[in-house]
Amino acid sequence: MKTLFKNGVIITANEQNEWFREGYLLVEGKTITAVGSGQPDTESEAEADQVINLKGQWLMPGWVNTHGHAAMSVLRGYADDAPLKEWLEEKMWPMEARFTADTVRWGTALAVVEMLKSGTTCFVDMYDHMDTVAEVVEEAGIRGVLARGIIGLCPEEEQKAKLNEATAFAQRWHQQAGGRITTMMSPHAPYTCPPAYIHRIVERAQQLDLPVHIHLSETAKEVRQNIRHYGQRPVPHLRDIGVFERPTLVAHAVHLEEEEMDILQEYDVKISHNPASNLKLGSGIAQVPRLLERGFRLSIGTDSAASNNNLDMFQEVRLAALIHKGVHQEPTVVPAEAALKMGTKWGAECAFVPHVGSLEKGKEADFIIINPGQAHLQPVHDPVSHIIYAASGSDVRHVYVQGKQVVKDGRCITLDEEKVIYEANRVWRELSRN
Amino acid sequence: MKTLFKNGVIITANEQNEWFREGYLLVEGKTITAVGSGQPDTESEAEADQVINLKGQWLMPGWVNTHGHAAMSVLRGYADDAPLKEWLEEKMWPMEARFTADTVRWGTALAVVEMLKSGTTCFVDMYDHMDTVAEVVEEAGIRGVLARGIIGLCPEEEQKAKLNEATAFAQRWHQQAGGRITTMMSPHAPYTCPPAYIHRIVERAQQLDLPVHIHLSETAKEVRQNIRHYGQRPVPHLRDIGVFERPTLVAHAVHLEEEEMDILQEYDVKISHNPASNLKLGSGIAQVPRLLERGFRLSIGTDSAASNNNLDMFQEVRLAALIHKGVHQEPTVVPAEAALKMGTKWGAECAFVPHVGSLEKGKEADFIIINPGQAHLQPVHDPVSHIIYAASGSDVRHVYVQGKQVVKDGRCITLDEEKVIYEANRVWRELSRN
Repeated sequence: MKTLFKNGVIITANEQNEWFREGYLLVEGKTITAVGSGQPDTESEAEADQVINLKGQWLMPGWVNTHGHAAMSVLRGYADDAPLKEWLEEKMWPMEARFTADTVRWGTALAVVEMLKSGTTCFVDMYDHMDTVAEVVEEAGIRGVLARGIIGLCPEEEQKAKLNEATAFAQRWHQQAGGRITTMMSPHAPYTCPPAYIHRIVERAQQLDLPVHIHLSETAKEVRQNIRHYGQRPVPHLRDIGVFERPTLVAHAVHLEEEEMDILQEYDVKISHNPASNLKLGSGIAQVPRLLERGFRLSIGTDSAASNNNLDMFQEVRLAALIHKGVHQEPTVVPAEAALKMGTKWGAECAFVPHVGSLEKGKEADFIIINPGQAHLQPVHDPVSHIIYAASGSDVRHVYVQGKQVVKDGRCITLDEEKVIYEANRVWRELSRN
Repeated sequence: MKTLFKNGVIITANEQNEWFREGYLLVEGKTITAVGSGQPDTESEAEADQVINLKGQWLMPGWVNTHGHAAMSVLRGYADDAPLKEWLEEKMWPMEARFTADTVRWGTALAVVEMLKSGTTCFVDMYDHMDTVAEVVEEAGIRGVLARGIIGLCPEEEQKAKLNEATAFAQRWHQQAGGRITTMMSPHAPYTCPPAYIHRIVERAQQLDLPVHIHLSETAKEVRQNIRHYGQRPVPHLRDIGVFERPTLVAHAVHLEEEEMDILQEYDVKISHNPASNLKLGSGIAQVPRLLERGFRLSIGTDSAASNNNLDMFQEVRLAALIHKGVHQEPTVVPAEAALKMGTKWGAECAFVPHVGSLEKGKEADFIIINPGQAHLQPVHDPVSHIIYAASGSDVRHVYVQGKQVVKDGRCITLDEEKVIYEANRVWRELSRN
């Protein structure tokens, strides 16, 4: 099946950040076989099974959301504006302790519907009941990079059981759903896992040849605690445990010293910047301009809807482009082009799915189509500017993953939106009644 | 004409921040005559000419956008990520010098369509060609608080002509369009108007009994310049000129010292907080938590689409609620309830239209209806949380100003959206061709 998309604005997010005011994209099965400016050659057009006239709509890679906990969407708005300790210990943990596979199924489905409709084609998820998460991903047609998040503050037996469960999950689902699902091993954080346990999890990742995903230095408090407990800051601590011997994606990385950046760079550690969550929980503001200046190819994550409170990557990328300009009183930092890459191509690299994230020949066809015919996206001179600074998730009309359409005219066509919303409210009611 | 809205979530934004999970609103002509929880009494229902079943939709006051330059929407995305001096002197000013009444008409119409559709029912505008702006406001059915912004770096004759023009405009349009238009006098800023000229403009405001609107301490640089030129910081400078003898709304107020806050508070000066624009231009981050702690009833403005780059007050209010938590590493500052007030009731007070901004008996009926049936607004336990942290302008379905519907099912019904977009692109092309 060959499908040709033509007469649209094509934003490639390739290395040179090329975009074409009038261009085309050719997709064969799940792969992009041509992308270019102007009109496709007549041969390509003749051979296409289907020709879609974009009529000036904007076609760009889908967003890659590199950190989150999808199921927590059922806790959206449950606790806001509270001190972190109270939020976590009095609100989130007691509720999460009641989560069942049923809760996770509908919380995840709610998040996936929201993500797909707002243009996210790939998400990284660290949570529990991951078989259920994988089943939702399989059905929804989204791309998922999934890990069973392991909290190690528990007896040896429980640690062993969790590690085995994470291992079984990672093996069972890696490269499944037509390659849309890949897996990682995920010790939750330095402050929730003893060093020896982190080491065992990473050894397992080594055996399975999988990357590692971990929270890192989200708050100043956990950094101080790490120094108190282990005599050093979190980055050298994780390095000494051997974590960075594996390809690693760290989430947050708000509180970093220069020497820690040196280490992260030496080991090519990937970073997920989570601006809204870091702001909302009062964690602080990551040193994004400095990291970009150093050459980090950063990515962007929403974190969960319990601390954001939406999963709209347009808003997240906009925030990433805006806040650092204000904090540093320097309007040239995190320009639109860098923000676009962080949300797409670099995001895919950070999630260890470099075969998506930009519109280039040979890559898998994960892309979205935006309707620019709204007042807030007019007049049109620079679509990249509008995507970063003016658009929001609701401007997305169509979404494709591996060449297969999953959102059509703004509706998710793989999951039943009404049923998902109904069930998400049901599991929330059941949770809050207990 | 009496219209009863019932069976909806009613968010009043009144002093106690009351909201009703199931409530009603009764509108007679342009006025709210009843608002409450549960079902209206049978008499009200029997007397209503029209009963609208909200079916669980959320009804709240329209947003009040307290600072902007609507016509600059035609420059949306024209210059991003540039140093402020270059942005202003090499990009904005040369383009704005070419603006005609035609440019202003369609730039303003574009902004008004965007604002209405995203739930803004009242906006403050400081610009040129204000008769044209007022004509657009009159036609669009939005509420406008309008001022001819006066830049005084020009010969005496020109100063006089501008002041006369501003005066004529303010007199001609004050309380026009059924009271939807009110006017102000507006010296642009301390750094663009000599003190004597500001004094004359304020004297005129005194004669006309109108408030004053002025930019204040947007950047650190202009504060330094003020000290260099006039020997003191901008707030005491404006006080000594006599500005604050008039009711005054200042925009930005990013760089304030405690003594300046004392003065602003002594004179009950109103403040428009413009978070996105202050971030994007690298101006800095206003001390919102401190101002709230001091008891300021702050408001929120988008500034123009040239430095934002959208006019979605949902995103602006969300930003105001998020950034200060991160900057101060304190998640309890600017809670959702304060952010809601800043965007509505306090906004109306700051724009000197205290007869709107909340749903209370006797106020004029400026309100919006939100469709919560989207994944990103689910599950529903706290609609105020979702409005502040999860919603965006595209969730707005219906908008009413003075009881008259201006947006229906997400379409602007007072202006022709397609024509406005077409004309805005035309004037942009003509500008950029020169």
